[in-house]
Amino acid sequence: MKLQTVKGFKDYLPKDALGRKVLRDKIIEVFEKFGFDPLETPTLEYEETLMGKYGEEEKLIYKFETPGKDKVALKYDQTVPLSRVIAQYGQTGYQVLSDPFKRYQIQNAYRGENTQKGRYREFMQCDADIVGIFSPLADAEILSLVYEIYKNLGLNVIIKVNDRSLIADIESKYLSTIDKLKKIGKEGVLNELEQKGLSKKEAEELFNRVLSLQPSKNLEEIIRLFKLSGYPDDAVEFDPTLIRGLDYYTGLILEVVLRSNPDSSSLCGGGRWDKMIGKFTGREYPAVGFAIGLDRTLEAMEEQGIEIAAATTTLILVTVFSEYLLNNALEVTKFLRANDVATEIWLDPTSKLDKQFKYATSKGIPYAIVLGPEEAEKNMLVLKDLKNRTQQTLSLKDLVEKIKKDQQN
Amino acid sequence: MKLQTVKGFKDYLPKDALGRKVLRDKIIEVFEKFGFDPLETPTLEYEETLMGKYGEEEKLIYKFETPGKDKVALKYDQTVPLSRVIAQYGQTGYQVLSDPFKRYQIQNAYRGENTQKGRYREFMQCDADIVGIFSPLADAEILSLVYEIYKNLGLNVIIKVNDRSLIADIESKYLSTIDKLKKIGKEGVLNELEQKGLSKKEAEELFNRVLSLQPSKNLEEIIRLFKLSGYPDDAVEFDPTLIRGLDYYTGLILEVVLRSNPDSSSLCGGGRWDKMIGKFTGREYPAVGFAIGLDRTLEAMEEQGIEIAAATTTLILVTVFSEYLLNNALEVTKFLRANDVATEIWLDPTSKLDKQFKYATSKGIPYAIVLGPEEAEKNMLVLKDLKNRTQQTLSLKDLVEKIKKDQQN
Repeated sequence: MKLQTVKGFKDYLPKDALGRKVLRDKIIEVFEKFGFDPLETPTLEYEETLMGKYGEEEKLIYKFETPGKDKVALKYDQTVPLSRVIAQYGQTGYQVLSDPFKRYQIQNAYRGENTQKGRYREFMQCDADIVGIFSPLADAEILSLVYEIYKNLGLNVIIKVNDRSLIADIESKYLSTIDKLKKIGKEGVLNELEQKGLSKKEAEELFNRVLSLQPSKNLEEIIRLFKLSGYPDDAVEFDPTLIRGLDYYTGLILEVVLRSNPDSSSLCGGGRWDKMIGKFTGREYPAVGFAIGLDRTLEAMEEQGIEIAAATTTLILVTVFSEYLLNNALEVTKFLRANDVATEIWLDPTSKLDKQFKYATSKGIPYAIVLGPEEAEKNMLVLKDLKNRTQQTLSLKDLVEKIKKDQQN
Repeated sequence: MKLQTVKGFKDYLPKDALGRKVLRDKIIEVFEKFGFDPLETPTLEYEETLMGKYGEEEKLIYKFETPGKDKVALKYDQTVPLSRVIAQYGQTGYQVLSDPFKRYQIQNAYRGENTQKGRYREFMQCDADIVGIFSPLADAEILSLVYEIYKNLGLNVIIKVNDRSLIADIESKYLSTIDKLKKIGKEGVLNELEQKGLSKKEAEELFNRVLSLQPSKNLEEIIRLFKLSGYPDDAVEFDPTLIRGLDYYTGLILEVVLRSNPDSSSLCGGGRWDKMIGKFTGREYPAVGFAIGLDRTLEAMEEQGIEIAAATTTLILVTVFSEYLLNNALEVTKFLRANDVATEIWLDPTSKLDKQFKYATSKGIPYAIVLGPEEAEKNMLVLKDLKNRTQQTLSLKDLVEKIKKDQQN
């Protein structure tokens, strides 16, 4: 039997899973502060729901047939399922969803990417979108939300912006080349444009035209409203070469990059996508939002030396001195938990203390409690600080007070 | 285009998604208090990882081939992926996982169930397991954890327990019949046992034998340790007819039912499964744990009239009186959010106030703020209580104080 994950898929062991959890919680905190509520849609959609929505990328969708002969596909993003939801519940005649509809969605997406690029085929997206508003105030609100999220994570970022309508007349095969500017440089872009059929002169003209674009009136208004909301001038930056791969954007497009490393890959991307929901409903339906790449954002935090979570949430290991004193250990454990102290008790009464300390240290638990016969008699316990290798004898009540005080600092 | 979810799959719209989120958070709170850290494994596993683990239920696994010709399957539960993780990282020679390994895992599982039974084919499981300990103290700790979780949810439950080793010699086809006792009654069980090849006398003998079983020494010790941990006598109840569908249990088995309705379907199930990891590693590896059915638990809370979450987390809608006063509305919004008040701002400056109030009411937002020209001039605002249909004029500072005070109550 192969003891491994499917190629391109990944386990998140406790330390990583804990970091992801804390990151999600910090993002949700900001989503809620902005009045976004959660939505969950299934991992599988009917194949026809996803087809015709992603342009060339469609080939990366995982499709299969169920035993019941349903043609299904794994979710490729959260945007198309959201569109399906808007259309489906809008059909019912009575209003199931609020209008406007503001939702966040933190779920996995699946893409059969080339794994050599270091990309995973299952990855978690944190999306937020405002559906039902054409006003640039909604676009500005999305920029504000993105800004506050990265501020809450302690990352200094720039939100690069562009207006897709400025380049709407350029063929998408040329756009996908210009999109590679960061990676392959100006020469690379010009060469590839020629390979795709432009003359040298045409390639240069197209490239120079894109480079010399100025912000649209719409984009200027979005940026004005963003600044009017109290955000700093240098938080957003117009970038005429920002393209975004997916075809479905119609106005604002945005990407978040580290201020200290603006040419590295983006942590978050999004924009306005007013035409997608119309593919389901038959009439235009405005929407603007973004998707945060959880893995990429975590990587950036690591690069910046920001520790998102400890190796474990456990604060104390209550060791078991002997079968005879198990009673006391259980009592102390229950008391600590009742006082909201994350506490493990060692679960094999036959183990030596040494083994128990080793476990706590290897797992990163900061404290261990020892309850020997002497301590038990005096109704005291020994608290070992496993990091600083110190210890003190104190009562259970004093211990809880000490821990609460430590946590406040 | 079919505007619907795949048959047997389900959307969770904001109110439901919010309830699920709060429920997960409340369960995680207890997991952490007990020293469990999270684990995440992929949605897909190699087909061969899942095959031969679930007995007859194996036919419910979703299988397909990827474009890269990988034979894969959707996760059927969290237990087999955990076993794969233990075996895989145990192979590496150095200790990647702690020993014992205590993890929780909150992820979806996929089963091609008959949807007529009201079952969904994608459902979220909240699992917790202790791996690496044979001692009944680990079994007792699992019972304590289950007890504390349901206490934290406000549900009065009974944990029904049995020892699978008491019935290890009975053929599993007969066990699956006895497992239906709640649903089909004694006569139904006896009839089905006869249909499966037993004589009338044999069927009655088998049934009576199971009914008259007494707790094993092992189970008595687990219950003693659970009570020694400070839990009440009536929290656990021995039930000789408790079987659990899956074949892989080896000792303790448990199911959680509502005390007020013990014959309804269980909210949580689990037990000791010492042989599964050995299928991957070749040597026995002890493990004990459980899976909470999130949907079933939420249903039970609804039945009991326990409201888990409000319709929205948003507390205030800042209305926009006019384009001219947008500035003030944006300022108030930013101030409230900076003070941790979940605040929406209306995002279309051309809307009438009436429409804005309707939105807030339909979404369940308790308060709306109105900033008209008069209030703006006096640096005051009007706070409308949308539930009680009252309103008051106050300063922004007083508003924040009022809200904070309300939240404390």
